[in-house]
Amino acid sequence: MPTNLPKVAVIMGSHSDWDTMKEACDILTEFGIPFEKEIVSAHRSPERMVEFAKTAKQNGFGVIIAGAGGAAHLPGMTASLTTLPVLGVPVQSKALNGMDSLLSIVQMPKGVPVATLAIGTSGAANAGLLAVRILSLVDSSLHQKLESYADNNRRLALSKNDQLL
Amino acid sequence: MPTNLPKVAVIMGSHSDWDTMKEACDILTEFGIPFEKEIVSAHRSPERMVEFAKTAKQNGFGVIIAGAGGAAHLPGMTASLTTLPVLGVPVQSKALNGMDSLLSIVQMPKGVPVATLAIGTSGAANAGLLAVRILSLVDSSLHQKLESYADNNRRLALSKNDQLL
Amino acid sequence: MPTNLPKVAVIMGSHSDWDTMKEACDILTEFGIPFEKEIVSAHRSPERMVEFAKTAKQNGFGVIIAGAGGAAHLPGMTASLTTLPVLGVPVQSKALNGMDSLLSIVQMPKGVPVATLAIGTSGAANAGLLAVRILSLVDSSLHQKLESYADNNRRLALSKNDQLL
Amino acid sequence: MPTNLPKVAVIMGSHSDWDTMKEACDILTEFGIPFEKEIVSAHRSPERMVEFAKTAKQNGFGVIIAGAGGAAHLPGMTASLTTLPVLGVPVQSKALNGMDSLLSIVQMPKGVPVATLAIGTSGAANAGLLAVRILSLVDSSLHQKLESYADNNRRLALSKNDQLL
Amino acid sequence: MPTNLPKVAVIMGSHSDWDTMKEACDILTEFGIPFEKEIVSAHRSPERMVEFAKTAKQNGFGVIIAGAGGAAHLPGMTASLTTLPVLGVPVQSKALNGMDSLLSIVQMPKGVPVATLAIGTSGAANAGLLAVRILSLVDSSLHQKLESYADNNRRLALSKNDQLL
Amino acid sequence: MPTNLPKVAVIMGSHSDWDTMKEACDILTEFGIPFEKEIVSAHRSPERMVEFAKTAKQNGFGVIIAGAGGAAHLPGMTASLTTLPVLGVPVQSKALNGMDSLLSIVQMPKGVPVATLAIGTSGAANAGLLAVRILSLVDSSLHQKLESYADNNRRLALSKNDQLL
Amino acid sequence: MPTNLPKVAVIMGSHSDWDTMKEACDILTEFGIPFEKEIVSAHRSPERMVEFAKTAKQNGFGVIIAGAGGAAHLPGMTASLTTLPVLGVPVQSKALNGMDSLLSIVQMPKGVPVATLAIGTSGAANAGLLAVRILSLVDSSLHQKLESYADNNRRLALSKNDQLL
Amino acid sequence: MPTNLPKVAVIMGSHSDWDTMKEACDILTEFGIPFEKEIVSAHRSPERMVEFAKTAKQNGFGVIIAGAGGAAHLPGMTASLTTLPVLGVPVQSKALNGMDSLLSIVQMPKGVPVATLAIGTSGAANAGLLAVRILSLVDSSLHQKLESYADNNRRLALSKNDQLL
Repeated sequence: MPTNLPKVAVIMGSHSDWDTMKEACDILTEFGIPFEKEIVSAHRSPERMVEFAKTAKQNGFGVIIAGAGGAAHLPGMTASLTTLPVLGVPVQSKALNGMDSLLSIVQMPKGVPVATLAIGTSGAANAGLLAVRILSLVDSSLHQKLESYADNNRRLALSKNDQLL
Repeated sequence: MPTNLPKVAVIMGSHSDWDTMKEACDILTEFGIPFEKEIVSAHRSPERMVEFAKTAKQNGFGVIIAGAGGAAHLPGMTASLTTLPVLGVPVQSKALNGMDSLLSIVQMPKGVPVATLAIGTSGAANAGLLAVRILSLVDSSLHQKLESYADNNRRLALSKNDQLL
Repeated sequence: MPTNLPKVAVIMGSHSDWDTMKEACDILTEFGIPFEKEIVSAHRSPERMVEFAKTAKQNGFGVIIAGAGGAAHLPGMTASLTTLPVLGVPVQSKALNGMDSLLSIVQMPKGVPVATLAIGTSGAANAGLLAVRILSLVDSSLHQKLESYADNNRRLALSKNDQLL
Repeated sequence: MPTNLPKVAVIMGSHSDWDTMKEACDILTEFGIPFEKEIVSAHRSPERMVEFAKTAKQNGFGVIIAGAGGAAHLPGMTASLTTLPVLGVPVQSKALNGMDSLLSIVQMPKGVPVATLAIGTSGAANAGLLAVRILSLVDSSLHQKLESYADNNRRLALSKNDQLL
Repeated sequence: MPTNLPKVAVIMGSHSDWDTMKEACDILTEFGIPFEKEIVSAHRSPERMVEFAKTAKQNGFGVIIAGAGGAAHLPGMTASLTTLPVLGVPVQSKALNGMDSLLSIVQMPKGVPVATLAIGTSGAANAGLLAVRILSLVDSSLHQKLESYADNNRRLALSKNDQLL
Repeated sequence: MPTNLPKVAVIMGSHSDWDTMKEACDILTEFGIPFEKEIVSAHRSPERMVEFAKTAKQNGFGVIIAGAGGAAHLPGMTASLTTLPVLGVPVQSKALNGMDSLLSIVQMPKGVPVATLAIGTSGAANAGLLAVRILSLVDSSLHQKLESYADNNRRLALSKNDQLL
Repeated sequence: MPTNLPKVAVIMGSHSDWDTMKEACDILTEFGIPFEKEIVSAHRSPERMVEFAKTAKQNGFGVIIAGAGGAAHLPGMTASLTTLPVLGVPVQSKALNGMDSLLSIVQMPKGVPVATLAIGTSGAANAGLLAVRILSLVDSSLHQKLESYADNNRRLALSKNDQLL
Repeated sequence: MPTNLPKVAVIMGSHSDWDTMKEACDILTEFGIPFEKEIVSAHRSPERMVEFAKTAKQNGFGVIIAGAGGAAHLPGMTASLTTLPVLGVPVQSKALNGMDSLLSIVQMPKGVPVATLAIGTSGAANAGLLAVRILSLVDSSLHQKLESYADNNRRLALSKNDQLL
């Protein structure tokens, strides 16, 4: 791992989002990507959020993964306060199954992009993988790891053909 | 009008929201409520938003009306930065007709309430009326004005019976 | 608490809404706000609803919180019969998860505002908090309580960072 | 027409609903059903609505057709105040195309039925036809008229086969 | 009960709809309305459906209650084959929670009305009550029963105020 | 074209569906498939529909394309009355943009399949192409025509690269 | 069974789709249709998918049934790589209950049809039945089997009338 | 601009997507990012898509922006064939306003991430900006350009305060 690979931040709006967001951390761990995780609530600690987002780049982060549910403002607000790529994970909500989370994250106005992933744990894992893809532009050795990961997934999927009974 | 009646702030995410939000201002004008209007974008001027929301009370505001569309974060973020009542107006969006705006505003987590009104101009006008209802707790003369307003609406509605041809 | 602080009414369409609406009462209790709770069904006791709404102000209420599910008419009808601010809580319904409750409450026509909160228990708690924010215009000591409440929430959220394992 | 055939009431929440609701009146006229039409707004004239609904039966009405849009409370509230059959027409709304109107009308709780028709003008015309079907239980001559109407529709539909070019 | 009161038919698309549709039968039993229940599948026994619908009137039925789920065609098809009032109950479906059932039943084109009730058991019970309201035009003694039923519901709702703890 | 190639029937619920359904006919014409088109309304001419569907096979049809909008029952009902493959085209409806048409057609219960295509004209054209794909099992020369059609589409798509300015 | 009856392929995106897709296989087994089943993931084994689809016809397949969930690309991509009829089954997804699967499969652009069935196990079984209907154009003995199947379903449905208690 | 900055590919499913996707190109031009644009249809030129995606990295691309509408498979399929970050733009569709496009793109299964942006032109512009944010990890001079861009947007938004009349 090159010493200058930027870190990934995994932030989330509440402790209840952790069951979803640890999927992102698991991927980052699997790929050996340095990361930090933190509860940064847009609504309960807005000034911590502003401070976090504004200093993220100088604190060595290169990519921010932000998960939130319901009226999910954390990804979009973070993206408005940094120039780093922000990846948004819509956490599945209780009443509306994450449709509210998804629309609150993805429907950003022109000027402030949030790279939105799928609702729930698949989206969190994919946020981790998207971060790896982005960082592979900096560290080309990650391309090979990503190819191995895809190869394993392909083999795993096909190997289950024996179980169709 | 009592001199100590707090002002209402009418803020919006972009100039394109003005066609909607002026309905709120028209109501406030009609009821003689002092108000100020300003473009305060959660995404394009997030620090102005933080400053605005944190100082709103000390600047003499008693109610904040905030309109935004799409991934509409302005009402919820403002509510997280003040203890004043915040009234949210979902502006009708192009692709999803304001369903994204509505869910982004109304589905707030426990702890940070946003008083959400209907999508579009009806919601903006009603935000103005809700502000008047709230301020009537401070200035009881507004109750009579609200009753007159309702009376006029009733008479106007019923007077159109002659036009059912 | 000033002796002239108006009471909050917490009304609901059916006993089955109580599991949701008690969250509003818990907040009001926590902030020391006087309140009364009552089942007032728009559909099963419409005349009681009319009487309740029309006399609410003279009976010492300053804010009405109304919860209902499905074709939820209680908040809007109450708002049409009083000039007090009415806060609507969409109770999560069985088939449509509260989307019907939400649209029935929030999409009010121009002239009769309902301050709509989120679907379910979060919305009920936030209705309580919104009532406190509104009453803080009358009793400024509530501002400090609201700030303490927000501070506690912030500390509580951040304190859970240790549990991200 | 028997002299004791009860009248149909066609009520609507606002004058803007008339373009939709006149379709119901046209059907009633075509079938020679006595009817009266009136603007009775649940939200702007709630007490007129209560009075209307409570006296509808003694005033000679046998069926009530009620149209409204958005948070459409008129049909359900009317049904809670009378034992007459109430037919609800969801008027197409601006932002949500009548999905809000439909859910506000159809999702009534156990105890208070509203016979809901389709969104918009088709629903209004069908409300008229449903009223005729209901009244045919009282006046059996209407059955023949309904059969003729259906025959004409069938012939009209099939006659257009020549125009498929 | 007058001897000439027409019967109500309660039909449903499949045996799995019975848990929903028995709510309609319970209401009819409670009001002493003669009724018959039968599985009549639009898709599995279409010719039985045609025969049933075409002969329903001559077989002594006055109202048809039809329940179905998913692509729910039974109510609309029945309505196209009879001039009796047809009441449609959208059965809650597995994947889409009855939204598919609702739209398949309510969105009928001009010419063929279906009186649509709420999704699920509430809608089934209300279909029974709507049938009673319709039949009260023929048998005025049902009005008093409906008023007693409403009174009981009102008392029951209000009596639960003691349980709000 | 082999003389024993079965015909395709293109049926639709109303003349207003023709603007959509002619796209299917255009494809069938382009591929030289014999077809007949007819207005067969499930709701206005249900017995014609039953007769049509029951005799379709013996009348030389091999595939039925059925288009309808709103509470679209024609495809499913036809499929319940024949063993031929039935292809359903959801016509775009006014209020709900064809979502009602789509769900009414696609959500068929186990036992009666409808091959559903996209909402609107794309779906109608694709119904024609699906019919050709199905008939290519009978007449293998159609495979080559389908490949040529796909080749042309590919070339046409890529040829437009010059127009990206 | 004629020796030249083409096989049916039942492919699916992941092993977790098998609980749904085995319903299709059960139908094919019941009708004595030769078939093969295989996990062919559009996303994890895209090149296997391309190879499978391009060689399906020469490998003796006549119909392809493809099931997938979420952003379900397998049916549409397969259809773009073969001229065989492709039947798409939307697998019920976790967060959005299969609405995402349905729209991803059915909303294909003009030129590439996918015959879409209902969400979940009903749709899978119906895909099997649709394949049988299609193959009955090649092997007319299948028509009789389909008629027997429908007869059994009809008898089974009606026989349950005794159980309505 | 460093000579080794990778190119951005802007691909789209059809020429009709160009009105949307040129917004991405405008942003890339504004930031001086080298890019190429091409129509690459998942459904009409699937093998071109496979070839394009598999060779994108060796052809000097670092980021791929893919736009498509309806059953939008291009972004997800491209992401399954490359390890580069893929940014998906849901093009607004005719019937369902892009909700189908959005769900088809964003709801990817674990293993294959697509960075999804908003529906329509805002999403396309934001895809361009997200590409710039990603590339700023390689070329730090882009950070300053992004900050200037955000500053201009902020100033532009606030400058319109004078136009609120």
